[in-house]
Amino acid sequence: MSDADASGVLSIDAMGGDLGPEAVIAGLARAVRKTPAMRFIVHGDTQVLEPLIAKRRGLSDHCTLRHAQDVVVMDDKPSQVLRTGKATSMWSAVEAVRSGEAQVCVSCGNTGALMAISMIRLRRLPGINRPAIAILWPSRNPAGFNVMLDVGADIRADPDDLLQYALMGISYARNGLGLDRPRVGLLNVGTEETKGRAELKEAHDLIEANAATSHYEFVGFVEGGDIPGDRCDVIVTDGFTGNIALKTGEGTARFVRDMLAEAFSATPLSKIAALLAMTSLKRLSKRIDPRRVNGGVFLGLNGTVVKSHGSADETGVAAAIALAWDLSRSGFSDRLQARVAAATRSLDVPSGGKA
Amino acid sequence: MSDADASGVLSIDAMGGDLGPEAVIAGLARAVRKTPAMRFIVHGDTQVLEPLIAKRRGLSDHCTLRHAQDVVVMDDKPSQVLRTGKATSMWSAVEAVRSGEAQVCVSCGNTGALMAISMIRLRRLPGINRPAIAILWPSRNPAGFNVMLDVGADIRADPDDLLQYALMGISYARNGLGLDRPRVGLLNVGTEETKGRAELKEAHDLIEANAATSHYEFVGFVEGGDIPGDRCDVIVTDGFTGNIALKTGEGTARFVRDMLAEAFSATPLSKIAALLAMTSLKRLSKRIDPRRVNGGVFLGLNGTVVKSHGSADETGVAAAIALAWDLSRSGFSDRLQARVAAATRSLDVPSGGKA
Repeated sequence: MSDADASGVLSIDAMGGDLGPEAVIAGLARAVRKTPAMRFIVHGDTQVLEPLIAKRRGLSDHCTLRHAQDVVVMDDKPSQVLRTGKATSMWSAVEAVRSGEAQVCVSCGNTGALMAISMIRLRRLPGINRPAIAILWPSRNPAGFNVMLDVGADIRADPDDLLQYALMGISYARNGLGLDRPRVGLLNVGTEETKGRAELKEAHDLIEANAATSHYEFVGFVEGGDIPGDRCDVIVTDGFTGNIALKTGEGTARFVRDMLAEAFSATPLSKIAALLAMTSLKRLSKRIDPRRVNGGVFLGLNGTVVKSHGSADETGVAAAIALAWDLSRSGFSDRLQARVAAATRSLDVPSGGKA
Repeated sequence: MSDADASGVLSIDAMGGDLGPEAVIAGLARAVRKTPAMRFIVHGDTQVLEPLIAKRRGLSDHCTLRHAQDVVVMDDKPSQVLRTGKATSMWSAVEAVRSGEAQVCVSCGNTGALMAISMIRLRRLPGINRPAIAILWPSRNPAGFNVMLDVGADIRADPDDLLQYALMGISYARNGLGLDRPRVGLLNVGTEETKGRAELKEAHDLIEANAATSHYEFVGFVEGGDIPGDRCDVIVTDGFTGNIALKTGEGTARFVRDMLAEAFSATPLSKIAALLAMTSLKRLSKRIDPRRVNGGVFLGLNGTVVKSHGSADETGVAAAIALAWDLSRSGFSDRLQARVAAATRSLDVPSGGKA
């Protein structure tokens, strides 16, 4: 691998996904065909990885292998991994971000373990209480996506955490979606200011009070239907609610897609119709294919970690790699850090709120 | 209207929906064409309603009009309606269930006000702490639907409430979906027993402990993706989470449908394809059309109230009426009451739980 600054290098955990290292290496090959400037540090069992990389023409020029004998599996407990997981590919992949060799790490492995290792090794940004996982959600907005966080880093979030999520989500929307002045909404069961839990009302006032100094627009409470909508660009919620919403949305989209496939294979006429509509349907399928928006981003740490779906195939891994690349090249980690630091210094706390 | 027992009579709030009484009366006419045995008590301004009903041939034979001069509008506060709403069509419609003239009431109006009036006039079943709103969700199960509750009656729910939701949801699945031994799942952010909030673990043990005596199967924790899935028939959650999930699912389905329509009008070829696939697409659209599964059912009261979508059109209203009819004819109110009473007498509380 040629020398490059850290923003041109991604740290890849090649093990631990449901489909094994084959899918990850195939994803790397696909990503690099599109963006030949990519360089990877690939973590895992070199005896397994070397032949897989050698099979892909030219890929080895983009890769530095780093041997890790152990693998974090899906049902490993995070606490256990913290004690005994130092020789795993996941640990090694995060470590390369800590050491500054790469700015962004990508893993398809166990989410809880990845978050635990990231927390311990990268540590939280000053002023951040709880890190969050942000995702891109296909939407009616011109950018094609909305940002939603937290989708499951922590099942709790107090009003201060929700304000921090808003600030981090805005930074992600600026860098990931190219929006100048993102609109933020706070997820609730109604749009009226009187609805919902007490801590949500407090968070509402906090996020509102900081909109001017932190250069975003606050649209107030939004509902589940606004997540794929165009009322706002960033949807803020706690990790419990966000995780349920994410999985409900994914499940619903999958259900509708399967019903659609069934409808098109129901009769000979509908099969012909499917052929005629192929191009249009492919465009649709691309737009709502979860593999193409694959990648939850851990925010609030010293360094960026992209968590790919455990079941990601070649297409899914390539999408997560492309996202990691964009974030790395835009210097996202540093920008986020600067934004949180600035906001933390000048937090406006409405009367009655906590300091 | 001819004499009939209360199970053949539905009490209809004809005012307060977004599309006005025209849509409600059109829905009644459509419902009665399919089920001529239906009888209605129709509540609202008779000067408005009489000509609307007269326009529909034969409909007046099925209707008894009951004059109510006031209307609850969408932004009326429930507390205000309780104080000053006695002359509203909504109040009158609920009153007819209280008096025993009808077993089930249907309204397209303000959900909060409808729940408040129902609580005050019908009162909770003995042993029920919080009533819940249950809906049918299109699913991969043979019945075509799953039951989910609570979707927004109350933003809080403690473990005892979640157990009561399970019991009421099972009763609804038996009567509404014809299932002998419904499978219940508790919504959480993961299926492992160690995941989620402490009160969810407590609810998990309570629902598990009562499965045998109350003749249901408990599949444990389920995730958002299982709501349209086939792992269980009844999904139990608190009203905050349930409302977010419902609106996220509806929003996602609407988004995918709109993208599909766009895909089919993109090119001349895709327009021809749409024509060819018309029948299959209509079948799909019917299956996932929220208007056809219209109707949240208030459970846990002395009497059943069906809340139709505020924006329901003729098709939507007819679907809510059909649901109300099925519940009325099956004697659902009495069965639910018996089930809750039996369970309350013999609740198994696992060690460490509350009595």
